[in-house]
Amino acid sequence: MAGEMAEQPARLSELIARADSVRALVRSLVPSPFTGITIVARGSSDHAAVYGRYLLEAATGLPVSLAAPSLHTLYGVRADYRGQLVIAVSQSGATPEIVETLRVLCSSGGRGLAVTNDASSDLAAAASEVLALDVGDERAVPATKTVTAQLVAFALVASALGEVPFSSAALSAVPGWVEAVLDDGAAARDASEALVDASHLIVVARGFMYGAALETALKIKETCSLLADGYSSADLRHGPIAAVTRGFPVVALRAAGPADADMASLVDELRARDASVLVVGGPDAPDVPLPADVPEALAPVLAVVRGQQLAQALALRLGHDPDHPEGLSKVTAT
Amino acid sequence: MAGEMAEQPARLSELIARADSVRALVRSLVPSPFTGITIVARGSSDHAAVYGRYLLEAATGLPVSLAAPSLHTLYGVRADYRGQLVIAVSQSGATPEIVETLRVLCSSGGRGLAVTNDASSDLAAAASEVLALDVGDERAVPATKTVTAQLVAFALVASALGEVPFSSAALSAVPGWVEAVLDDGAAARDASEALVDASHLIVVARGFMYGAALETALKIKETCSLLADGYSSADLRHGPIAAVTRGFPVVALRAAGPADADMASLVDELRARDASVLVVGGPDAPDVPLPADVPEALAPVLAVVRGQQLAQALALRLGHDPDHPEGLSKVTAT
Repeated sequence: MAGEMAEQPARLSELIARADSVRALVRSLVPSPFTGITIVARGSSDHAAVYGRYLLEAATGLPVSLAAPSLHTLYGVRADYRGQLVIAVSQSGATPEIVETLRVLCSSGGRGLAVTNDASSDLAAAASEVLALDVGDERAVPATKTVTAQLVAFALVASALGEVPFSSAALSAVPGWVEAVLDDGAAARDASEALVDASHLIVVARGFMYGAALETALKIKETCSLLADGYSSADLRHGPIAAVTRGFPVVALRAAGPADADMASLVDELRARDASVLVVGGPDAPDVPLPADVPEALAPVLAVVRGQQLAQALALRLGHDPDHPEGLSKVTAT
Repeated sequence: MAGEMAEQPARLSELIARADSVRALVRSLVPSPFTGITIVARGSSDHAAVYGRYLLEAATGLPVSLAAPSLHTLYGVRADYRGQLVIAVSQSGATPEIVETLRVLCSSGGRGLAVTNDASSDLAAAASEVLALDVGDERAVPATKTVTAQLVAFALVASALGEVPFSSAALSAVPGWVEAVLDDGAAARDASEALVDASHLIVVARGFMYGAALETALKIKETCSLLADGYSSADLRHGPIAAVTRGFPVVALRAAGPADADMASLVDELRARDASVLVVGGPDAPDVPLPADVPEALAPVLAVVRGQQLAQALALRLGHDPDHPEGLSKVTAT
């Protein structure tokens, strides 16, 4: 896991260097009329998809949905996906239900793009075009370099389809920012001490950062055998906050932008409930900082890396092997 | 909460009696061309929306998405929702971000249906048409009768738009099945004893039943101040299962149908990990039964009622007031 985390700046640079050809490939797939986008994914890829969902809807204005695979793999419902760009995301390209769902949605009119690490996978074969992540073998069970590459891939796809809330220069700066975060492992290691006695925790964020909260929670679950769940701040206020009592550990992800006022007030509210809040990013002297000047829409890439560091440090501190979580394997069949 | 739970058979009967007019109203709204459906909701209404998402996609074959309100309320992205039926769901019809999101999506071409208990609410005013649930005032903070009415409303809307996986006769039988479940409170009360020492738990289901798992988890969180999270069985296998260790409490919702083989094997897997699994529904001598003969696509209504009973019984057993959870109010502004 540590080795694959360390590769991220180089792998993201290589992907960003292919920006022009990726954009051309995406544009060649756009159906006409173009009525919406559907993303097919599970696990960490699904968290990248949540990020992609915000970014793609911001860029196109069109409704973006996350597929419910069981409709196609178990219930066999009739589908009409004409006008849809269907983006299927899987590290291995081998998860059977993702492959099958992409196949059904393409055979019912969707134009399929596979985002995968293996350009010769079943998923790639089921798609019209392949965006190969080319980040190399991933051996640790918890996905790391693939996830940040998937986030950057969504940033590239969105920039091919419309206006995005970040500049090309900012996108090109991402690998450097990731390197700066990786070079500063002490902040996350120190912060993870506050979570050592937790029997469960939540990770909360809003808007573009929401997918990073889901992914950070999953990394902690996978590596630490600890129940951790991700929430949007809005969803947390709609009921779940009732479960936040004295000492309850919460990791809050923040980034300057339109969603941050809501996060700032939520952190105050959680502290008023005597929750134990660990803040990652944002302007108010966070426990774990993110690089300054990162646009909010790209901050999730850095927050995900912070989440990897937190999960890894906590797992080691708790005596777990983060590379081989008990009872998990690399490809999941459901 | 108890009083409102007890009203459910009568309120659902009244709603089902209006089936023909509801269907006519829905059909009058369908845009041409009709390219997809978007649902806007938060909290319990969002869990009804997850159920609706499966049912509406099964009925129409079109992509169904759940809106990300912050895109419209915080980021102000340009939207193009021509061809979309937009269904906004809110008990009070007063949640500002739901009202605002519906307004934006309608002003960008969507045809808006408000599903609400208050036909004179802001949400109703923002919509083209209103499906009034008319279940009467809801005074307890945890929503109960509104949620089952929302599920039935989605069943009616789906049946207006295409073929649904249940008969009219089965839909008409729902209030009687709900009554049978309510008359058999002892099963849930006894089962809740197994959860008394839990500091956290998960609720798991698949396919049509997934929304009921999310809602059951929320009811437990709200009433018992206990971290409970809902998962689809497929998502659980993609990593989170690593957090399920010896004695970990899991509530599994089952119903005979195409998704049940997956649930049955998951229950076996969880028990092999020495989890403490409480089974609701399904054919294998469940701890808490659901009525026999309920079609899978309607079973979520009954499972939600079982979840209400479990949450209420556990809250009382733990000394909480289920009607007034600490720090929650009826309308949430985010």
